[in-house]
Amino acid sequence: MEMSQLEHNVRKHMNMICDLSAANSVLSWDQETYMPSGAAYSRAEQTSTLAAIIHQMMTGDTAKKLSDDIKEALNEKKEVSALVKLFLEDYTKACKLPEDLVRKTSKATSLAHESWKNAKQASDFSLFQDSLQELVELKSQAAELYGYTNNRYDALLNLYEPGITVAELTPVFQTLKEATIALLQSIEPQKESVSDELMRRYYPHDAQVAFSTQIAEKMGFSFDNGRIDLAAHPFCTSFSQYDVRLTTRVNEHDLGPCFYGVIHETGHGLYEQGFSSDLARTFGAEGASMGIHESQSLLWENVITRSEEFWHFALPYLKNHFPGIADEATPRDFYKAVNKVQPSLIRVDADEVTYNMHIILRFEIEQMMINGKVKIADIPELWREKMQTYLGIVPENDAKGALQDIHWSFGGFGYFPSYTLGKLYAAMLWKCIRQDIPAIHSHIANGEFSHLLQWLRTHIHQYGRTKKPGEIMNALAGESLNSTDFIEYIQHKFADVYR
Amino acid sequence: MEMSQLEHNVRKHMNMICDLSAANSVLSWDQETYMPSGAAYSRAEQTSTLAAIIHQMMTGDTAKKLSDDIKEALNEKKEVSALVKLFLEDYTKACKLPEDLVRKTSKATSLAHESWKNAKQASDFSLFQDSLQELVELKSQAAELYGYTNNRYDALLNLYEPGITVAELTPVFQTLKEATIALLQSIEPQKESVSDELMRRYYPHDAQVAFSTQIAEKMGFSFDNGRIDLAAHPFCTSFSQYDVRLTTRVNEHDLGPCFYGVIHETGHGLYEQGFSSDLARTFGAEGASMGIHESQSLLWENVITRSEEFWHFALPYLKNHFPGIADEATPRDFYKAVNKVQPSLIRVDADEVTYNMHIILRFEIEQMMINGKVKIADIPELWREKMQTYLGIVPENDAKGALQDIHWSFGGFGYFPSYTLGKLYAAMLWKCIRQDIPAIHSHIANGEFSHLLQWLRTHIHQYGRTKKPGEIMNALAGESLNSTDFIEYIQHKFADVYR
Repeated sequence: MEMSQLEHNVRKHMNMICDLSAANSVLSWDQETYMPSGAAYSRAEQTSTLAAIIHQMMTGDTAKKLSDDIKEALNEKKEVSALVKLFLEDYTKACKLPEDLVRKTSKATSLAHESWKNAKQASDFSLFQDSLQELVELKSQAAELYGYTNNRYDALLNLYEPGITVAELTPVFQTLKEATIALLQSIEPQKESVSDELMRRYYPHDAQVAFSTQIAEKMGFSFDNGRIDLAAHPFCTSFSQYDVRLTTRVNEHDLGPCFYGVIHETGHGLYEQGFSSDLARTFGAEGASMGIHESQSLLWENVITRSEEFWHFALPYLKNHFPGIADEATPRDFYKAVNKVQPSLIRVDADEVTYNMHIILRFEIEQMMINGKVKIADIPELWREKMQTYLGIVPENDAKGALQDIHWSFGGFGYFPSYTLGKLYAAMLWKCIRQDIPAIHSHIANGEFSHLLQWLRTHIHQYGRTKKPGEIMNALAGESLNSTDFIEYIQHKFADVYR
Repeated sequence: MEMSQLEHNVRKHMNMICDLSAANSVLSWDQETYMPSGAAYSRAEQTSTLAAIIHQMMTGDTAKKLSDDIKEALNEKKEVSALVKLFLEDYTKACKLPEDLVRKTSKATSLAHESWKNAKQASDFSLFQDSLQELVELKSQAAELYGYTNNRYDALLNLYEPGITVAELTPVFQTLKEATIALLQSIEPQKESVSDELMRRYYPHDAQVAFSTQIAEKMGFSFDNGRIDLAAHPFCTSFSQYDVRLTTRVNEHDLGPCFYGVIHETGHGLYEQGFSSDLARTFGAEGASMGIHESQSLLWENVITRSEEFWHFALPYLKNHFPGIADEATPRDFYKAVNKVQPSLIRVDADEVTYNMHIILRFEIEQMMINGKVKIADIPELWREKMQTYLGIVPENDAKGALQDIHWSFGGFGYFPSYTLGKLYAAMLWKCIRQDIPAIHSHIANGEFSHLLQWLRTHIHQYGRTKKPGEIMNALAGESLNSTDFIEYIQHKFADVYR
């Protein structure tokens, strides 16, 4: 078979699958933004029908024939495009789990989501224990079927970050842990010198949305190809690179959740809008990995817009949207207010320094769960011990401890490390950016983000999922992962914040 | 085969098709309400993939096997449910058109839509002529394939109103035409006694939406199972009876488009919310026909909410939403303002009396087109002649004449009569309602719509598409169609308005 014919056939089949996936994403977006409450049951039927048809197309006769053709071409050492290889990869992965296990897992996660909600509400881990036990068993089975070399948990990690292993992450996280503890100790004597009171004044709802939207637009988010709506939780979803939807939420007594919610999601959204047009309707029109995706949101949210330079640019806009609310404040006041460091119980509220400790704790506990090295019933106690060791505080109940996150209820073991990978990648990228764009600091201070965005487009966005995370990072930083750049970044930044 | 097994198999297949159709409707709704402009091309690809898969499921092997089983059961005189019969009906219809014709028509309508837009903008019929010619030919071919007894146009009429024929409609429309001309003549001397100035004051945007929404809620529209959004044109779509979406538009210098737009769509929406739960995810969860659907919107829009009683109820709410704008007005003032009769060029702006003349004109021209009795190039002139004869006015250009409606650009020949059928059905229903609910006038004056809604639910809504329009109307009115009830209704009403 001609390779151009194979490419054509594979693309055609991917196009249909991608269109259906996009449709399913529209249904989910609508569910989170506008859908009336009484429609939940019928919507669940619609999305599950779509998912079933997508799975069928992903594993059915056409897909099998295509994957056989690809294997044959590879055997014959023919040149095969990255997209075609991606198809084979995804087909192979989709076929690894028997339908019975997929159905069981889907049912177990539905039930687990309910029992997790109840358990969290009652702050009683025992109500979630059986569901969690079942999900751990099902996901351990899945890990065995996916396969791994050294650690069963690697198979789950790889669902979110292709190619990463426990063996690689452990020393990186160890260094990070030690440096974080040392930094927290150095901040401790100065902790009263920074307050976030400035962010916690009364910021009216509509002006928060307008201000955040304006900054998203300045960052380069295309509103011809995207929009921002309100939802219970901030997220970014896309139906193609030409239609990227962000959401945020508003607390009128705290500017942070809306403003940094929008900026974080805009970081994701710029990535999604930046895929090469050649990747439209293909499996390539996705992020390289969860970690790389998160690096984009965190670069903007933490590195760029929690910098003092950024507030030089943004403060006049803020004062314009909120007359009389922070008239006396300087850029440095806002810079300090958005960088307060404070060990806390809840991951999503954590600052840049302590955040990774929440992840390392979960990374360690998840490994033990998936490798059968901890009784599920003992997790709350293990959680408290680790919180005491890493952050010096202990949750007074399970809702603020092992029940706080939704991830385990959908069986998302292996997902959490992506967040810290995102921070590490962002710091590595930031180092490259400062080298490649020496004027970056003054760009930020002037609200000129086009050079930065162009850099991200050129080196990361355009490739979508056609390059692996390691490939992207190696090409830019000369190595796939380090914690050094991040540690230097926070040491330098927080020495300044707490100087 | 056990009939319960056949019913189960048919339902299962319908469920999947309905879920996919619902997904496609969500995509279309999003396109009209929130989708960013740059997403149009990728959205078109998504909807056309979904449509292709739906068509495949509607005509593929599974559908064929099911329809063979149904035919066998019918041959064996087994009891077969209305839903199962509907499936066979829709399968048979879907198979009548060869894929080649479907594809050609789909392409031709895309192009025709563009050329119609350009032609309308330039007010030049010749720019649309070739596209229209092609669509007339394709639809004539389709009509031949669908089959008919007497008139080729019947096959197209039946797509929107099952069972109706030109032979049945012609005398009904003739009587209606004569009565309308007579009524217009009787109004003529009094025409200055009614003004719509009251509706054309400055009504602020948000208050228009709030007022309209409040009335929709009073009518019984469930906002747990539906919502109202803004769009360029008002419409009603539903993704299940548990999720019905209405749209409206606002002109701050005319209360009518938003308010009566919402009420009209709420009439459709109440029908969609009223299907029996047993019909969820089946081909039965649709209106019995376009005409019956329109009867629901028009009953509410014209009969109920353009009555004097309604304004007794609604005026205090209006004054509350718009303080100072119409403080001096009485219910009778609004009743008169919303019932001004005035021959006009544009169908969608027409009043209850003149509206049908616009439809009859189109009904006559469409018959000639589909039966090859008029040259396409001669249509603008034919239009002008008929406007002169029926309404005594002549469009000064094609944009206000034969180019004004979108329908021909999507090949919707046979659709227009549904609007007048809706008015005739609504008047027939209104006669039944006054007999069955003697207190209906005081209910309306008190804003108590639950008895009326219950009546509509019991006699019409619950059945969805499992009863034919003729069956519904015969059971209620003792005949399938008449123009007498409508003529009596407008004669009585407008004698009062213009007394």
